[in-house]
Amino acid sequence: MSDLEIRPAAHDDIPAIVALLADDPLGAQRESPDDLVPYESAFQRLAADPNQHLVVAVRDGRVVGTLQLTVIPGLSRRGAVRSIVEGVRIHSGERGSGLGTQLIEWAVAESRLQGCQLVQLTSDATRTDAHRFYERLGFTASHLGFKLQL
Amino acid sequence: MSDLEIRPAAHDDIPAIVALLADDPLGAQRESPDDLVPYESAFQRLAADPNQHLVVAVRDGRVVGTLQLTVIPGLSRRGAVRSIVEGVRIHSGERGSGLGTQLIEWAVAESRLQGCQLVQLTSDATRTDAHRFYERLGFTASHLGFKLQL
Repeated sequence: MSDLEIRPAAHDDIPAIVALLADDPLGAQRESPDDLVPYESAFQRLAADPNQHLVVAVRDGRVVGTLQLTVIPGLSRRGAVRSIVEGVRIHSGERGSGLGTQLIEWAVAESRLQGCQLVQLTSDATRTDAHRFYERLGFTASHLGFKLQL
Repeated sequence: MSDLEIRPAAHDDIPAIVALLADDPLGAQRESPDDLVPYESAFQRLAADPNQHLVVAVRDGRVVGTLQLTVIPGLSRRGAVRSIVEGVRIHSGERGSGLGTQLIEWAVAESRLQGCQLVQLTSDATRTDAHRFYERLGFTASHLGFKLQL
């Protein structure tokens, strides 16, 4: 496969990112690719926040992957900074290509650059393939992830 | 019991917060209450970030609980804002008093004020009492939480 670039998401990437978010068994029920207005304002807020790193993976000029890395300072663990990975999506045509590994390795490397001592993420309990994937990359499934919809 | 106040943490609360973080089976191995320097710089960083809400619960002038709420914008779920709760600690003399419930209810209410559509947290798989506690408060253990130490 041709060269891959992982770079900060630009405003023009929003439709492609939303298409990736929607092309997913869980995302299909949650996203609205035909109405980008709510995504535009969310993008502006992300772009203005130095602790937010929304990136896209681009191959041959096409967005084929995305993730969001959030840097979180805190007092616990002797003032450790941690990062949280959210919204990992890989284009259906790229699954199994190693792109997921490249994206997560980017997130881990960027977390080190940002001075983080811990990278964390949650994965829906039904995504068993994803669990094996994260464990292969060295993550430990040490926690339960709780959510409350408001 | 006398009235409880939940308020933003101030610089002078750092020793009491660190004492709470350390007074825990997992925290005892991770914290350094005798060296507050790393906590001071972490506190400054939290105080400067409008998406960070480190709070203390105070009863009779004494810090008896703490938690950190982080507000995270994002594109997924139609640009939903979510919040993450970290570092929940209750003074040993207050456990079973309902203070944990009050703190989490504060976090949920503040998340609504901040426009969040989702509150999430992870809890170490060994903290089974905490899991029942979060489920009683309406949270669903729908995810696995993965961590990678750097």
